Amino acid sequence: MKAIILGIGNELTSGQTVDTNSAWLARRLVAMGIAADSFHVVADDRPAVAAALTDAAAKAELVLVTGGLGPTADDLTRHGLADAMGGVELVLDAPSLVTLEEFFRRIGRTMVPSNSIQVMFPAGSRPILNRNGTAPGIAAKVGSADVYIMPGVPREMRTMFDEQIAPLLPTGGQAIVERILHTFGTGESDLGAKIVDLMQRGLNPTVGTTVAAGLVSVRVSARAATGEAAAEMAEATMAELRRRLGEWVLGEGEATMPSVVGDLLRRAGQTLSTAESCTGGLVGAMITEVSGSSDYYMGGVVSYANRVKRDALGVDEALLAAHGAVSEPVARAMAEGCRAKLATDWSLALTGVAGPTGGSEAKPVGLVYIALAGPAGTEVRRTIFPGDRPTVRMRAAMAALNMLRLALMKGT
Amino acid sequence: MKAIILGIGNELTSGQTVDTNSAWLARRLVAMGIAADSFHVVADDRPAVAAALTDAAAKAELVLVTGGLGPTADDLTRHGLADAMGGVELVLDAPSLVTLEEFFRRIGRTMVPSNSIQVMFPAGSRPILNRNGTAPGIAAKVGSADVYIMPGVPREMRTMFDEQIAPLLPTGGQAIVERILHTFGTGESDLGAKIVDLMQRGLNPTVGTTVAAGLVSVRVSARAATGEAAAEMAEATMAELRRRLGEWVLGEGEATMPSVVGDLLRRAGQTLSTAESCTGGLVGAMITEVSGSSDYYMGGVVSYANRVKRDALGVDEALLAAHGAVSEPVARAMAEGCRAKLATDWSLALTGVAGPTGGSEAKPVGLVYIALAGPAGTEVRRTIFPGDRPTVRMRAAMAALNMLRLALMKGT
Repeated sequence: MKAIILGIGNELTSGQTVDTNSAWLARRLVAMGIAADSFHVVADDRPAVAAALTDAAAKAELVLVTGGLGPTADDLTRHGLADAMGGVELVLDAPSLVTLEEFFRRIGRTMVPSNSIQVMFPAGSRPILNRNGTAPGIAAKVGSADVYIMPGVPREMRTMFDEQIAPLLPTGGQAIVERILHTFGTGESDLGAKIVDLMQRGLNPTVGTTVAAGLVSVRVSARAATGEAAAEMAEATMAELRRRLGEWVLGEGEATMPSVVGDLLRRAGQTLSTAESCTGGLVGAMITEVSGSSDYYMGGVVSYANRVKRDALGVDEALLAAHGAVSEPVARAMAEGCRAKLATDWSLALTGVAGPTGGSEAKPVGLVYIALAGPAGTEVRRTIFPGDRPTVRMRAAMAALNMLRLALMKGT
Repeated sequence: MKAIILGIGNELTSGQTVDTNSAWLARRLVAMGIAADSFHVVADDRPAVAAALTDAAAKAELVLVTGGLGPTADDLTRHGLADAMGGVELVLDAPSLVTLEEFFRRIGRTMVPSNSIQVMFPAGSRPILNRNGTAPGIAAKVGSADVYIMPGVPREMRTMFDEQIAPLLPTGGQAIVERILHTFGTGESDLGAKIVDLMQRGLNPTVGTTVAAGLVSVRVSARAATGEAAAEMAEATMAELRRRLGEWVLGEGEATMPSVVGDLLRRAGQTLSTAESCTGGLVGAMITEVSGSSDYYMGGVVSYANRVKRDALGVDEALLAAHGAVSEPVARAMAEGCRAKLATDWSLALTGVAGPTGGSEAKPVGLVYIALAGPAGTEVRRTIFPGDRPTVRMRAAMAALNMLRLALMKGT
C-alpha cells in the first residue's frame, strides 16, 4: 500500500513552523506496516491544495492531510478538497453543528458565525470527530484514493488519527519493526565500510545510517507477516551489527552518551568529577542531563582562568608557565588535581582551543587535550577537532565521555 | 521567482527525523524576497529522487535540495541528479578530492575509498565547498531550473547556504529587510498584548512573534522598492518596539543572553564566576559559548554533591543540615563562597530540583533558588519553573543570566 502525507499551511511554507505532523504520522504508519512514500507541504492556497490532493491521489492509495481546517479566511483545505473531488459543493452537516455548539458551551465560550465554516463538508465526504478542538476532520475519496484530512494542531491531529482514522486503515499486509543502534568513535564512511553488505538495496531488513547529535546511528527496518517474525529478523541484524561494530556501539533506542556512561558508573559503584577549561561546564551539563546522575557525579571545577586551575585544582604555576594551559602536562594535572580534591574514582579534564580566535601554528583551533584520571592512573589524549566553536566543544565533550566509557567497559 | 525545497532521506520519510532544513531554508528565502512554493520529502531511492528533481525543475526556477550526499550506499542523491540531468555520468572532481584528502589529514583520520564517491559529480554540474564536513554540495541545471544540493546535516547545510549559495540567488523584485528583536522576561501573549496594533495583518512592516531558545523574539519584515527605504521602515518599527518593551529587550539579530551579559561585563571591566548545582555546568557552558569570554569569566564550581558545596565553596554543613541543599540560605552561601574563592566581582549560584524525581510538597520539581553575589551584596530569587528536566534547567540558567544582566544595566 502506497501512502503520501500532505501538510498544508502558510506557516509551514514560510518556515515559521516546522512540520512535525508528517514525521509523526509516518512513524505511526510504519508501526502499522505502511511505509510513507513521500511528504509534501503546500501553502493555504486553494488551487495548490487541490493540485496537491489530485496529484497525491493519483500516486497513492492512502493520503493523510493535516492543516487548513481553521475558521479563518486563510484556511482553504476543505475548498481545495471540493475542487479535487470534481468541483462538488460544500454542505452543512447538521450533527456536526450540534457537536460544535456543544463544544463551545462546554468551554464556556460563545460560538462566532465564522466557526460554522468548520462544519461544512464537500458533498460525498464525511466528518471525523475532533475531541480536542472545533474543527472536525474529513474523510473522502479522491479518485480511488482514501483521503483523510486532520487539523494541523498536533494534539488534535494525534488524537483524531489514533482514535478515528487508524482503526479504518488496512494493515499493510506486513508488520514493520524498526530498531536503532547508536555508535560513537568513527565516521559514517568507516562505519559504512564494515556493514556495506547489510546496506545493499532490496534487502530485508533494510539497514541505513544517519548522523545526529554527534553519533552515527544505524537504523534497521524489518518486514514480515507478523510482528514477532519482523522483530526476530530485526534482532538478528542488530546482533550482527553489534558483533561487527564492537566498541563503537554505544547503545540502542533512547540511549545517549551521558546515559550510557552513567549506567556504567552506577553498575561499577564508582564516582566521577570534571575539570573543564575550553568546554566551560558543557561536560558537567551533559552528564547531569540524566535524571539520577547525582548517584555518580559529584561535581567539578570550571577552570577557565589559569588562576582557577592553580587555586581550585592545584595545577602547578610552573607547569602552566612552561607548557601553557593547553598542554598534555596541564590536562594531566587538572584531572589528577580534580580527582584528589573532589575525592572521586574518576576525573575527566579538558583544555583546548575552541576558537575561532586564540589558535597558533603549534596549538591550532580545535586542539584539545583530554585527560582521564582513574584508579589505574591517568591517560591523556591529544585531538584536533574540526568545525566551528560549538562543534569543537561538543565533539571534545563527547570524546571525553567516550574515553571514560571505554575505560569503564574494560573494567567490567 | 518560484522556489521548491526538496528533502531527501529514509530517516525523513520513516519519521525518525523531523525535516527542519526545509523550514530553515524557507525562512532564508523569505528574507531574500523569495517565497517557497512547496516542500517535498522523498526517500533515498534513486528513481524517486530523479522524479522529484525533474518534477520540481519543471515547476520552479529554483530548487533547493538537502540530504543524500553521504559516503554510504544508501546515499543516492547525486545518482538521482545525474538521471534527472538526462542520464549523465558521474565524474571525479580532482580539486574536490584534494580538499577532501586535506580535510581527513587535518582531523588526523585516514580516508577510506568509499569517501571518494563524495567527490564524484554528474557531468555538467559543479561542486560547492563544504567547510564543515566531507560532502561538497552540487550546483546544476535541470531543464531551465537552478538546482542546489546541500548536505542534510543542518550545520553543514546552513553554512554552505549562507556562504556559497545565497550570494548567487537573485532577490525577488521588492527589497525585503528583516530585523529581529529578542526579549526575555515575559510570555508571548503578554508581550503580544503590548504590540497588538503593530501585529495586525496586512501592515507593512509585518510584525510577528516567535518563541525559541528561551527567548520571545519579535520579527519585523519591511518591503519597499529599495533596500534603503525598507531598512528605514524596519528601523522605525524597531524603535517603537524598543520603546514599548523596555527592559525585556535583550538585543537584536545575533545577540544571545550570554553575548549580551558578556558585553555588559566587558564594558564594566568586571569578572564573573558560577556555582552550579541543578544546572550541572550549563550556565558556565552558555557563558563560554561566546568567543572571548575568558576576558570576564574566570570559571566556577559544579557543586552537585553536598560535600562539594562544603569543600569547594565553603557552604556551612549546619546550613545544609538545617535548610537542605535547595534553599535560600544555601544559594546565598554558594554565591558568596564562590565569589570569595574565585575572587570575582560577581558570582551566580543555582540550586534546585530539576526533576522529574526528587520533588516534594515543600520543594516541588522546578523549584530553583538563584543567588547573585556582587559588589553591593547578594540577591536571591525563588522561582518554580514549569516544564520537563531540560526545560527547567534551561529556564533557570537563562533567568540567572538575566538577573546579572539587569544588575549590570542598573550599574551602568
